[in-house]
Amino acid sequence: MYQVPRLDDAAHIRRALRRAVAESGVHLIRLQLHHFGAGRGVTGVALLAESHISIHTWPERRYAALDIFMCGGHSDPQKALDALRASLQPGRLRVRRFERGINRPTRG
Amino acid sequence: MYQVPRLDDAAHIRRALRRAVAESGVHLIRLQLHHFGAGRGVTGVALLAESHISIHTWPERRYAALDIFMCGGHSDPQKALDALRASLQPGRLRVRRFERGINRPTRG
Repeated sequence: MYQVPRLDDAAHIRRALRRAVAESGVHLIRLQLHHFGAGRGVTGVALLAESHISIHTWPERRYAALDIFMCGGHSDPQKALDALRASLQPGRLRVRRFERGINRPTRG
Repeated sequence: MYQVPRLDDAAHIRRALRRAVAESGVHLIRLQLHHFGAGRGVTGVALLAESHISIHTWPERRYAALDIFMCGGHSDPQKALDALRASLQPGRLRVRRFERGINRPTRG
């Protein structure tokens, strides 16, 4: 995500992750967030029963790198992405989708 | 990683992550591991000052999905991969490499 405001705001990032978990039908094991200090980036991961969502932010570049990794037929990574987009309000977004695992085609 | 033994062994996975962190020149913030129960998978993440390493295992399929996500000129994701491979002993490995971020080309 590019051109993103408030990437040094850990509480904001935490809320964004929680909302993404809630809206995508997955089960949170633990949410871990680390703030590198005032005005600096945040790194966080929501460990899920269905894998994880991670975020690393560079507020000085208004850039955030997110991974949404989900397994299980009931989980909906697109809903997680929609929720993160609604929360974080990027000016520009680049999304890449991959399938991985056993007996699944892999595409870029 | 395919054809991997001991993917239900949380202590083994934890050691593998710690070794990968130690050998790749990065700084561990926190290592989180969750074991889904005897004979079942493990999900874990090493939160780094330089981003993260994650693992999700499916022992019943002898399959593990790992991400090695590192920023910073001093970090060496290849060394993390080498360490994980040495620890986890996959029969087969499929690696995909991506660059991401600001002012970097993205390749599949």
